[in-house]
Amino acid sequence: MAHHVVVVGGGFGGLETARRLERHDVKVTLIDRQNYHLFQPLLYQVATAGLSPGDIASPIRNLVASRPNVEVRMGDVVGVDLANKRVKLADGELSYDSLVLAAGVRHSYFGKSQWEGDAPGLKTLDDALEIRRRVLLAFENAEREDDPVKRAGWLTFVVVGGGPTGVELAGAISELARFTVAKDFRRFDPRTAKVVLVEAGPRVLAAFDTGLSGKARASLEKLQVDVRLQTRVQDVTSEGVQLPDGFLPAKTVLWAAGVEAPPLSKTLGVETDRSGRIKVQPDLSIPNHPNAYVIGDLAWFPLPDGSSLPGLAPVALQQGKHVAEVIGAGLDGRPKEPFKYLDKGIMATVGRASGIAQAGSLRLSGMLGWLAWLFIHILFLIGFRNRIIVLLQWTWAWFTYGRSARLITGTTPVPHARPVVVEVPREKVAS
Amino acid sequence: MAHHVVVVGGGFGGLETARRLERHDVKVTLIDRQNYHLFQPLLYQVATAGLSPGDIASPIRNLVASRPNVEVRMGDVVGVDLANKRVKLADGELSYDSLVLAAGVRHSYFGKSQWEGDAPGLKTLDDALEIRRRVLLAFENAEREDDPVKRAGWLTFVVVGGGPTGVELAGAISELARFTVAKDFRRFDPRTAKVVLVEAGPRVLAAFDTGLSGKARASLEKLQVDVRLQTRVQDVTSEGVQLPDGFLPAKTVLWAAGVEAPPLSKTLGVETDRSGRIKVQPDLSIPNHPNAYVIGDLAWFPLPDGSSLPGLAPVALQQGKHVAEVIGAGLDGRPKEPFKYLDKGIMATVGRASGIAQAGSLRLSGMLGWLAWLFIHILFLIGFRNRIIVLLQWTWAWFTYGRSARLITGTTPVPHARPVVVEVPREKVAS
Repeated sequence: MAHHVVVVGGGFGGLETARRLERHDVKVTLIDRQNYHLFQPLLYQVATAGLSPGDIASPIRNLVASRPNVEVRMGDVVGVDLANKRVKLADGELSYDSLVLAAGVRHSYFGKSQWEGDAPGLKTLDDALEIRRRVLLAFENAEREDDPVKRAGWLTFVVVGGGPTGVELAGAISELARFTVAKDFRRFDPRTAKVVLVEAGPRVLAAFDTGLSGKARASLEKLQVDVRLQTRVQDVTSEGVQLPDGFLPAKTVLWAAGVEAPPLSKTLGVETDRSGRIKVQPDLSIPNHPNAYVIGDLAWFPLPDGSSLPGLAPVALQQGKHVAEVIGAGLDGRPKEPFKYLDKGIMATVGRASGIAQAGSLRLSGMLGWLAWLFIHILFLIGFRNRIIVLLQWTWAWFTYGRSARLITGTTPVPHARPVVVEVPREKVAS
Repeated sequence: MAHHVVVVGGGFGGLETARRLERHDVKVTLIDRQNYHLFQPLLYQVATAGLSPGDIASPIRNLVASRPNVEVRMGDVVGVDLANKRVKLADGELSYDSLVLAAGVRHSYFGKSQWEGDAPGLKTLDDALEIRRRVLLAFENAEREDDPVKRAGWLTFVVVGGGPTGVELAGAISELARFTVAKDFRRFDPRTAKVVLVEAGPRVLAAFDTGLSGKARASLEKLQVDVRLQTRVQDVTSEGVQLPDGFLPAKTVLWAAGVEAPPLSKTLGVETDRSGRIKVQPDLSIPNHPNAYVIGDLAWFPLPDGSSLPGLAPVALQQGKHVAEVIGAGLDGRPKEPFKYLDKGIMATVGRASGIAQAGSLRLSGMLGWLAWLFIHILFLIGFRNRIIVLLQWTWAWFTYGRSARLITGTTPVPHARPVVVEVPREKVAS
């Protein structure tokens, strides 16, 4: 019977492993909770109505259809028995010969999980649709609100966390308000909407050089985003956020402040960092479990300076490829090589025409940084069709400031609806 | 103060009225439960993963942004006080001088509303996403099912109702199984999936000539759809449908068998047909309420033969335009003209390359009928961008048999998950 590799997670890392294993005499089972692979770097575009879910997601089965040795299983992994080499799913168990954990991370509330309902994070497509719903409904609710104080609450958007996701969300929401829906409302000017980006550290996009980080901040401020650095959120409620200098009323709060490993990680009984990421050996295996590997955001891969590799798509892709090679080497009796990350640089975008990129000694910002960002992201978007459609959407949006996916979907479209019928004087209605 | 027109519903009829009223000195409030206008004729494409929601829906505010006299309100109309000219919303009230009811219809279970959970209908975008979810999950569940009888249940799709929606759904699901996902599964052949179209009457697409209707049936059968005419569904459960000749096991049942007016219609105290559609005067007003009009699917407009105008987009569009003119005439003191429907024909499609069209003495079928259908539908799709994108998606799908929006979204992606961990013998897993 062929060597059985179970891959948990169909993100960048897991998918790469499954696809790369085609050269080897192995049977692969790729498990994911969803039926699609998600191009996570553009998820904020779905959350801000720029792209549709179908533009950045492709069915996993489709992506491995040409690999007859890969079986895809939609399922929820609830635990792993490393000693007996078994993966526990919500609806069954699987044995493995080699295991690749590529389950990713979720957003973390640093122990304040009660904030989640009032400040959703952005990790899944369903998260993105929920954020889109809240952002668009906030404008709808502002339109029907007559009390100026309450209306201001609907028109204030707080984004917590100044990393790439937080910066991209804040920039996109500000553009949405200032350009896309600028003429859509009759009772208020959407350009008065306030977007506040709250970051605990001393600068946004801290992974970049101080210079580029400052340029990103300047771009945000040009888009009227109120950037508050060295500011820690003390509490989140349905009415706003408590900051050190007072309560900031805001009906829409989005969380982009940190990540943690899924609960699965704690069930393994292996060494993790504080956020639950699993510490791996140089060959990406778990210590004392040479046939169990961890890759991508879930892996804590040590660097010489004591830190670890960041949670980036290129890291996951390279690790996915490496694990496939290591498994092949094991089967052939060759030595397992240590993983080496080839740093090709990092990039982020602020709004529709400004971005920053940093690779080796190269530094790009402004329009040039944005074009570099656009080129790379469309290049890596899986599926020829998606690339064309996204490029077309972007070209269209560029000239019209349109955001085409401005749909409020979900089961309760009118959350602000009060159960009691309120009499509205006719003057207010027809004025 | 300007004459206040309240339009209930942002579908083809309501939107047309609101847009056409721009020429008159009126203030318009357009109310819809959703924030988008939906191109309903292509909704089955979203339900079968061919198009994304954003391709066939546009924000209503955007569509009337250039009409400063139109105010859009997202809200749920729960009743109308015709005597006092007030519209009751779930969260308030509005006074009107003229009222246009264009609230459409929903699917009807002919008194068997308990079937709704097991046999969802297709009227809204959320309905379409729910159907897409069920259809795609059925294949996922078939892949993890080892019992051949249970697997056959997951691979049987029953569509109830042989009108345009039922025919389009059945054709598209059969193509999805036979072409799009044909290579995606390892434990069964998706081409063995059974699609059964159940129609109580003697033929499908009964609005068409017998000849065209027969051709549509032949096209369906060529796509392996099992068409059962003169067959009435006696019961629907989560396990299948009870037909006169026995129980047909099917985990996925879709309802396209009939429509009825929303509850709003019954609260008005006016004359309706059996399905709740409101009987209107020749000028589209409600008898005894000259300033309250009903248009589109919700209107029962009498024809000389005692029947009524069908619920079609062209009828709604023409009525929307007519009501705007009638309201203008009333303001100017001119007489209100009776509505005359200009029948430009009807068309339907079966699968990706066959359609039927009937206009005057013109009859088209096969590829030609499909091209006519495609041309008209893309032409009328609102928004230049949508047209381009949809055309591109279709071209792509035509050559690849791909259905790009094959995403299972929603909160419980794995409904089949059992709470108890079942031990699966390793042979079954790795074989």
